[in-house]
Amino acid sequence: MQFTVNRNLFIENLNNVMRAISSRATIPILSGIKLTLTDTELIMIGSDSDISIKTSVPVSDDLVVGSTGSIVLTARFFSEIIKKLPGKDFSFEVQEGFQTKIVSENSEFTINGLDANNYPRLPEIPDDSAFKLSGKTLREIINETQFAVATSESRLVLTGVHFTFNPNEINAVATDSHRLSERSLKLENGPQVKTDLIIPGKSLQELSRIIGESDPEVKVCPGESQVLFEIGNISFYSRLLEGNYPDTDRLLPTESATTVKFDLAELSSALDRASLLTHAGRNNVVKLTLDTQKQQVRLSGESAEIGNVEENVTFGELTGDDLMISFNPDYLRDALRASETDSVVMKFTQPLRPFTVTPDDKTIDFIQLITPVRTF
Amino acid sequence: MQFTVNRNLFIENLNNVMRAISSRATIPILSGIKLTLTDTELIMIGSDSDISIKTSVPVSDDLVVGSTGSIVLTARFFSEIIKKLPGKDFSFEVQEGFQTKIVSENSEFTINGLDANNYPRLPEIPDDSAFKLSGKTLREIINETQFAVATSESRLVLTGVHFTFNPNEINAVATDSHRLSERSLKLENGPQVKTDLIIPGKSLQELSRIIGESDPEVKVCPGESQVLFEIGNISFYSRLLEGNYPDTDRLLPTESATTVKFDLAELSSALDRASLLTHAGRNNVVKLTLDTQKQQVRLSGESAEIGNVEENVTFGELTGDDLMISFNPDYLRDALRASETDSVVMKFTQPLRPFTVTPDDKTIDFIQLITPVRTF
Repeated sequence: MQFTVNRNLFIENLNNVMRAISSRATIPILSGIKLTLTDTELIMIGSDSDISIKTSVPVSDDLVVGSTGSIVLTARFFSEIIKKLPGKDFSFEVQEGFQTKIVSENSEFTINGLDANNYPRLPEIPDDSAFKLSGKTLREIINETQFAVATSESRLVLTGVHFTFNPNEINAVATDSHRLSERSLKLENGPQVKTDLIIPGKSLQELSRIIGESDPEVKVCPGESQVLFEIGNISFYSRLLEGNYPDTDRLLPTESATTVKFDLAELSSALDRASLLTHAGRNNVVKLTLDTQKQQVRLSGESAEIGNVEENVTFGELTGDDLMISFNPDYLRDALRASETDSVVMKFTQPLRPFTVTPDDKTIDFIQLITPVRTF
Repeated sequence: MQFTVNRNLFIENLNNVMRAISSRATIPILSGIKLTLTDTELIMIGSDSDISIKTSVPVSDDLVVGSTGSIVLTARFFSEIIKKLPGKDFSFEVQEGFQTKIVSENSEFTINGLDANNYPRLPEIPDDSAFKLSGKTLREIINETQFAVATSESRLVLTGVHFTFNPNEINAVATDSHRLSERSLKLENGPQVKTDLIIPGKSLQELSRIIGESDPEVKVCPGESQVLFEIGNISFYSRLLEGNYPDTDRLLPTESATTVKFDLAELSSALDRASLLTHAGRNNVVKLTLDTQKQQVRLSGESAEIGNVEENVTFGELTGDDLMISFNPDYLRDALRASETDSVVMKFTQPLRPFTVTPDDKTIDFIQLITPVRTF
């Protein structure tokens, strides 16, 4: 195996594959990157067993093949070495005993490789039921739901986001049983048949980073226990979570007793200040008081050691019954961060029943639910 | 105690005082900031017992006094609260039981304070033997020596930089017994009599940050066990280290057998690559081979697990005997970082004797010494 490659081109592809490498790899060979060179392309694969990322660089003036083959190299060192090489190009040659020689200008590295035959194979996923969607849509729905997945693994299925793809719509819901986020977006060319997938939150975080800020076309290939996303020359594989995702529709309140509208920035900064003190204390709980007669909204927080804070929050509109409700400020902070409108609507039924946060724009199908905390 | 103040003005002063606050304060009251308001100024003091920082804000349109007094407030929370307040100004009032009320626009905090009478007093340092120097000069000499102090406290005196101030010159030397850095700079108005001070490296790091990128005038007031630096409205107190600093002059070699000149950037990046592998192994040692006949310089490093690297380093001039020498690459990296010229001269005597790194400019009085490592 021998090739010469443009260093920047190589690094760009290497960086994508590195996203799959975990520093806590339990299978030793997974701390490595697999490189396979054919007459037409260089393939790099990284994996942490939950996600695998494959990227392919076609042979060109910037990638000149000497001889084909494959090798596994320790990802962390290999990547640091390539990034620090002095030249515009480097040459790469596998010698006896998997020793790999990397030369760039006056710098020459010889690093120990591993037999590529011992690297786990990627699953084969047929593209019978594949469909395409916009990268922007996928990234948006990930960023609006993924944060709400459970971090504890006591109910494994809740560590994932539940996606339902329909011919014209994509729906995603995530909940850690204290708060919930559900978003629907229009699709142009969804799958012919309804497709249900529960994808681990961590996989989605990496997928969203790989999609990046542009709007690439993403091909989704659902498999038995894995799903494959193809984005340009990158193949992103994620494990799927098995089991039944709970029916969350019945959790959404159908009516409300009190409604209030807030400017996102106003509410965020008041919440930020209130939680300064609650984060210091044992109870991370703020109290929201809605006085519809006096038309007054107050947010307060306290810590026995530090002191207390009272915020008179300005608001857009307040109707219905008076209410006093206590909740974890971090849930509302996350909900506000995921919001894409400048103004949000909060609807309440009773002090101990979940309340909703929705955009102040009825054309956006996005609902977040937060369970209050009993403080008496 | 009551005042109203411009928030940005207050934060600017608070940030300076915060530099003295340690998150690991052993004396509880030192996790606080002391505020004292007189009819003419607001004084803030922070301390970690090694260093103390005092800043004074004069009464003006931006600082309006209601009533005088003093209080101690938990530094971390107080600072976070002030930074997150919504308004341009805030009002500050100490109420019964040291409760302190802070109001800005719709936000109202009440935080628990402590009796300012329990806060330790700052030392009184007479300015009989005070002198002035340029902040730029002081920052420069700190940055060129401070990194070489010992981090282990087994010889406490080596954790400080040894300063000698003369009427026309300032000299500083630091060593951890493996490497040494010594710098002299001209002074315009040094002290009348030679003044010797051993100042802890950590104090100097903070002092250098407070001096910042500009060139303020610094007044140095040496005391018995403390030294005071006055910079504008900031007073910076540091503990002095007691004991005799070793005579380092005798360590500096007076002759050399091999001399080589390097471009700083070339050598730095070769060293960077070589140490990639040595940092991974058990022995953090690189080998430098100077071949004067072939006019070749090679730098190599290895790690049994990862592999090895050979660098053919380009150089400016190489004269004298052939040499093979091994050393810790981190010491040379630090020495190169402290260098202010684009080119450096390295001089060697024998493979097991310390070598020197000096600027390729004889007008700069700066010498660094590195002890090699025996590898056979």
